[in-house]
Amino acid sequence: MSDTSWNDDPSRLLRVTDGFRLAEVDPGATPGYRDGKKSGENDLAHGTKQLDELQERLYAQSRVVPQSPSLLLVLQAMDTAGKGGIVRHVIGATDPQGVHLKAFKAPTEEERAHDFLWRVEKEVPGAGYIGVFDRSHYEDVLIGRVRSLAPPEEIERRYGAIVDFEKLLTDAGTRIVKVMLHISPDEQKKRLASRLDRPDKHWKYNPGDVDERKLWPDYMDAYQKVFERTSTPDAPWYVVPADRKWYARLAVQTLLIDALRDIDPQWPAADFDVEVEKARLAAT
Amino acid sequence: MSDTSWNDDPSRLLRVTDGFRLAEVDPGATPGYRDGKKSGENDLAHGTKQLDELQERLYAQSRVVPQSPSLLLVLQAMDTAGKGGIVRHVIGATDPQGVHLKAFKAPTEEERAHDFLWRVEKEVPGAGYIGVFDRSHYEDVLIGRVRSLAPPEEIERRYGAIVDFEKLLTDAGTRIVKVMLHISPDEQKKRLASRLDRPDKHWKYNPGDVDERKLWPDYMDAYQKVFERTSTPDAPWYVVPADRKWYARLAVQTLLIDALRDIDPQWPAADFDVEVEKARLAAT
Repeated sequence: MSDTSWNDDPSRLLRVTDGFRLAEVDPGATPGYRDGKKSGENDLAHGTKQLDELQERLYAQSRVVPQSPSLLLVLQAMDTAGKGGIVRHVIGATDPQGVHLKAFKAPTEEERAHDFLWRVEKEVPGAGYIGVFDRSHYEDVLIGRVRSLAPPEEIERRYGAIVDFEKLLTDAGTRIVKVMLHISPDEQKKRLASRLDRPDKHWKYNPGDVDERKLWPDYMDAYQKVFERTSTPDAPWYVVPADRKWYARLAVQTLLIDALRDIDPQWPAADFDVEVEKARLAAT
Repeated sequence: MSDTSWNDDPSRLLRVTDGFRLAEVDPGATPGYRDGKKSGENDLAHGTKQLDELQERLYAQSRVVPQSPSLLLVLQAMDTAGKGGIVRHVIGATDPQGVHLKAFKAPTEEERAHDFLWRVEKEVPGAGYIGVFDRSHYEDVLIGRVRSLAPPEEIERRYGAIVDFEKLLTDAGTRIVKVMLHISPDEQKKRLASRLDRPDKHWKYNPGDVDERKLWPDYMDAYQKVFERTSTPDAPWYVVPADRKWYARLAVQTLLIDALRDIDPQWPAADFDVEVEKARLAAT
């Protein structure tokens, strides 16, 4: 951290712990970072190399060592908060061969005929992969709760089911990093207005976004509940202020680098005799 | 092309047409390109922006317009020829949200219990996506032929099946670009030796690579047959000399840009009333 402009550890600062109140988080702040956008972009470029190397090592290890770990990034946010930008600028800077990206949309009829975790279980990352969920099973306790898409007792059941499901994953070697990108209603208004102003951005606009926007306080309550019920030591939530895109990207990148450093993947030893192979190759 | 160092069109030069002979292609050549590595890398960086914008437009169009087109890049090559580098440096430079990447490995038991196209059909790109096959259904007439993994009459049947399958895809709006990265046996030997020399590359080495290498002439015959039987006007093969990685990457990028320009995707018109939405948003 000494060669960056971080002056505190975002993995600690942004982590949801007991007594966390979403209402107290300032979406325009840049916790732990002493400089502005320009430094932030430099640090992001610098971090890209670290993330890239750690990702390659994670993948390499899994090719040789059984039951190797994986990493799962869960991204949740209100519309326009910048999930796409994270995928593009943070994840997109690593080798696509080591990434499993899944964007969860409104469930299909077949998916609705199964338990809410059914479609999610199929998309968990394999050993050595970085999995990215753009939206996730949390939709089923966010829009699910706000829009009453399931009875209250079913919503209640889901919090526990999520904790159990994520424990299965972490016990099997998946590190889980859950991120809520937190923007302010004013910032969302600006971003939606900008999409309406630009014909090349119209495709990103959906009239339903305004309907959801009107339910902002209900969504914030639903997020608060999610943090209280599903932030666990093994699968913690991080709330990342996201009114400044550069900060959100840098913070998420740093969370991923920290998680990978903690996993500490190693180049695997050869599972063949190197000298024998050199001789075999030389003979061709 | 005028602002690059191309002096001829790679989409024409590298395309397999009647009378093509793989044996006559020099894997060390740089057809159509007048400069060396440094220019090539500059042109690659320049092309990245074009590819990125075209890809976004392709995706945007598909979000609004039914039956929008998609693009499928099929990559085939001998080991170490650089498929991974293409995925990483050419495809990896675009938004991962618009890419569907599938690496085909040796078929599973379940896959072998179905027709060889069964597992492939499930991975064709959706509208608006760039699909990338790292290996493909062509393995079933390459290693399938060389290693006699199926009876000769079944191998024969597959050429026709592939042509029919690809015609279904192109008729339904998928542009297909099939690329063989062509390296020399000497260059492969160097690359394999380098993997054996570096402990951080051991994981990329597989003793089976040397076994396949011994069958080089058989593989070249199998590729020649593939070109003769499956290069069609709608789904042509391109043979890209690949001893120089920078050239191979630039050439494949250029093939993709040309295909996307030909598709000519457009920013879609709004499917809602922009003024109405501005008013609705302003009221929140």
